[in-house]
Amino acid sequence: MEEKKVSMDKIVNLCKSRGFVFPGSEIYDGFANTWDFGPIGVELKNNIKRAWWKEFVQKDKDTFGVDAAILMNPKVWEASGHVASFGDPKMDCKICKQRFRADTLVEAHSKGSVSAEAMTNEELEAYISEHNIKCPHCGGFSWTPIRKFNPMFITSRGTLEEGADKVYLRPETCQGEYVNFLNVQRTTRAKVPFAIAQIGKSFRNEITPGNFLFRTIEFEQMELQKFCADKDSMAFYEDYKKRAMAFVEGLGLKPEHLRFHDHDKLAHYAKAACDIQYLFPIGWQELNGIHHRGTWDLSRHQEFSGKSMQYTDPFTNEKFIPTVIEYSIGADRLTLALLCEAYDEEKLDNGETRVVMHFKPEIAPYKVAVLPLQKNLNEKALEVLDKLSDYFPCTYDEAGSIGKRYRRQDEIGTPFCVTIDFDTLEKNTVTIRDRDTMQQITIDVKDVAKYVLERI
Amino acid sequence: MEEKKVSMDKIVNLCKSRGFVFPGSEIYDGFANTWDFGPIGVELKNNIKRAWWKEFVQKDKDTFGVDAAILMNPKVWEASGHVASFGDPKMDCKICKQRFRADTLVEAHSKGSVSAEAMTNEELEAYISEHNIKCPHCGGFSWTPIRKFNPMFITSRGTLEEGADKVYLRPETCQGEYVNFLNVQRTTRAKVPFAIAQIGKSFRNEITPGNFLFRTIEFEQMELQKFCADKDSMAFYEDYKKRAMAFVEGLGLKPEHLRFHDHDKLAHYAKAACDIQYLFPIGWQELNGIHHRGTWDLSRHQEFSGKSMQYTDPFTNEKFIPTVIEYSIGADRLTLALLCEAYDEEKLDNGETRVVMHFKPEIAPYKVAVLPLQKNLNEKALEVLDKLSDYFPCTYDEAGSIGKRYRRQDEIGTPFCVTIDFDTLEKNTVTIRDRDTMQQITIDVKDVAKYVLERI
Repeated sequence: MEEKKVSMDKIVNLCKSRGFVFPGSEIYDGFANTWDFGPIGVELKNNIKRAWWKEFVQKDKDTFGVDAAILMNPKVWEASGHVASFGDPKMDCKICKQRFRADTLVEAHSKGSVSAEAMTNEELEAYISEHNIKCPHCGGFSWTPIRKFNPMFITSRGTLEEGADKVYLRPETCQGEYVNFLNVQRTTRAKVPFAIAQIGKSFRNEITPGNFLFRTIEFEQMELQKFCADKDSMAFYEDYKKRAMAFVEGLGLKPEHLRFHDHDKLAHYAKAACDIQYLFPIGWQELNGIHHRGTWDLSRHQEFSGKSMQYTDPFTNEKFIPTVIEYSIGADRLTLALLCEAYDEEKLDNGETRVVMHFKPEIAPYKVAVLPLQKNLNEKALEVLDKLSDYFPCTYDEAGSIGKRYRRQDEIGTPFCVTIDFDTLEKNTVTIRDRDTMQQITIDVKDVAKYVLERI
Repeated sequence: MEEKKVSMDKIVNLCKSRGFVFPGSEIYDGFANTWDFGPIGVELKNNIKRAWWKEFVQKDKDTFGVDAAILMNPKVWEASGHVASFGDPKMDCKICKQRFRADTLVEAHSKGSVSAEAMTNEELEAYISEHNIKCPHCGGFSWTPIRKFNPMFITSRGTLEEGADKVYLRPETCQGEYVNFLNVQRTTRAKVPFAIAQIGKSFRNEITPGNFLFRTIEFEQMELQKFCADKDSMAFYEDYKKRAMAFVEGLGLKPEHLRFHDHDKLAHYAKAACDIQYLFPIGWQELNGIHHRGTWDLSRHQEFSGKSMQYTDPFTNEKFIPTVIEYSIGADRLTLALLCEAYDEEKLDNGETRVVMHFKPEIAPYKVAVLPLQKNLNEKALEVLDKLSDYFPCTYDEAGSIGKRYRRQDEIGTPFCVTIDFDTLEKNTVTIRDRDTMQQITIDVKDVAKYVLERI
């Protein structure tokens, strides 16, 4: 397996030290598989979400956004099949009482050479017994049989005396589109084919090691469901494969770190399913999915809700339940991929090494850092900062040598450093340093916003 | 009490019929106090969130954003006091088993003339008994005693065999800032005073009627915590009162529909607390809060986590736990206020009435609607739409008379309608109709984006 140059540890450490991402609830020794986006990370992630929305909603007249509630009527999850059959094979260590996924234990033990996903519970148990796979927590070997464990978080609405009404945290956002299919179609008067898109959080009670942002118990999905006639469905499937790939390449992921990966097994209703994989520091892993879902989702909701999900073609008067093509990408996972891709260690002429995050300017957390060369220039610098902050996110740094300040901005990927010097007071000019080339040019203060806007 | 001209019913109906907001899980007969933002509503709400972030984070060099996980280490809620004492007085109807808030029953029965918030459980029970207040659900009169009911949603992480580890859905976002106080200060090297801001969802197991978006079981907060020296705290309190008021007025809420409301009772650690109230169709109600929180939050986290929350002033070397000023506003509640404020029914010269949403162009869901006058102009219209959609969200409508199409755009508050007519083909000009004045001007196609950008 081809290896990426940067290790996950380096990314995690940079994220913690520069304010991209902190461990969740860190002062309480954390909370497994949760992460908090810090001041730099929240800007990066917001830029990514905005870029996705612009590309797939704003610029596509046939796509309509929604933002559905996380807590839905429990019948939604009966219709979707999640209550009955959603689940991972889990075993408990009888000694330390910790719970683990059997398939993950097998894959970790075999270092990825065994594909545990396709194994039955009996095969998993046999493999674990045969290879004497011990508890990763206490080192013991005393396992319960495998049971299916539903990874939906369960809570209770608590309006009834006994508090018995189960409510689930949604494990996927797409049901918010399906249940609103009729509402969106009616209010927009959209004709099939059209899509409904959403960005929002989902929750899964994952107990496997998360590999930083790769797998977390709450995660943000950016996804859309294209509703179309079945005869057009494979064309849209191919179309979204192309658009999905173009999108991640456009944000800066290199083509040689990306590949399509068709699914081995298809759901009974599906004509096709594939992922786009990215070469993460942990190897090739799913970055996003494009799935043909047939008429499964709307049919199930028609069955469980009793509401007709049929669409009547206005030209042919044909009635049919639309086929769905789903395109889904994890905002956290994409953020992680972009962090890995951007990371670079460059040898400088003076023998030093600089760490630099080569984000595309469009997604860089801050577009400009304003740096006064000396203390008595701070006032002028704040004036410049104030004006630029009307246009885009900026940062300000007055502490330390100018070289050190450049390095800090390199590490958070700020594309332009604007230095305020004595010429700023006298001639109203500043120098702009380019993050990637480290070249500096001198321009008039009043032209800075325009200069930067043209480059983002 | 002064009355607003528009009823909540009209707002709810417009929202449903035009795609602003739908009842959550509607095809399953809904799910109490949840709402889904539709295609128009999601754009409106995103614009509001973006405007807040720009004003309070991007344009304020001393404020840093975070996006913390919703699921936090349960110790956070012990430290915050939510596990022990957070709760509403609830009674169950012994006949139909439904649960109600005792204070809400009293306030509803007294039509707001009794302030139940300050009553003890005994006083509430006495009042209900004396006034023979019946169950709103079944009409019976057989109540259990009042018990405190913790409105935090409880779930379980499920990594231990018995699944016994309780996890809470956060009932407020601000703890995400407190637990990251040290992380943000360290990575940004910010000096006190500085603030940490966040936009994110919180959850409360509310069982009272919600009044549409006013009170929902999941809601999005936009809030910041200013960390400062105690001697400066009242100045920042006053400062945020001003900025908070200027912000909502800037978005279009009329000064006569806004007022400050000081809290009657203060928490023991607080020097001051006030709300900004808006005149909703249900009367004057809280829109946002500005709270002096003393050193309570950081002190509690220091006590429960064992991590020092002290800040050392770099000039005086004085060590202290910063005082917190909290400024918090609900994104859903502000969206509701802006919907109510924007709604208008205008008598036209021809005797008809038009419904028009007078959103400020900055927050209007779509900036432009592109309307081809006839079918053979659709191709040209789509070309224009395509170009404009690079700059801002637009919508497209080719169905029905031009007058009807204008009305639809008025009802979703689109500030500019661009009509494609035969002059567009011949002279490359379009007409732009202004939503508020209904005046039309003719301009060159290539100037449309600039014309609109200057007005948003």
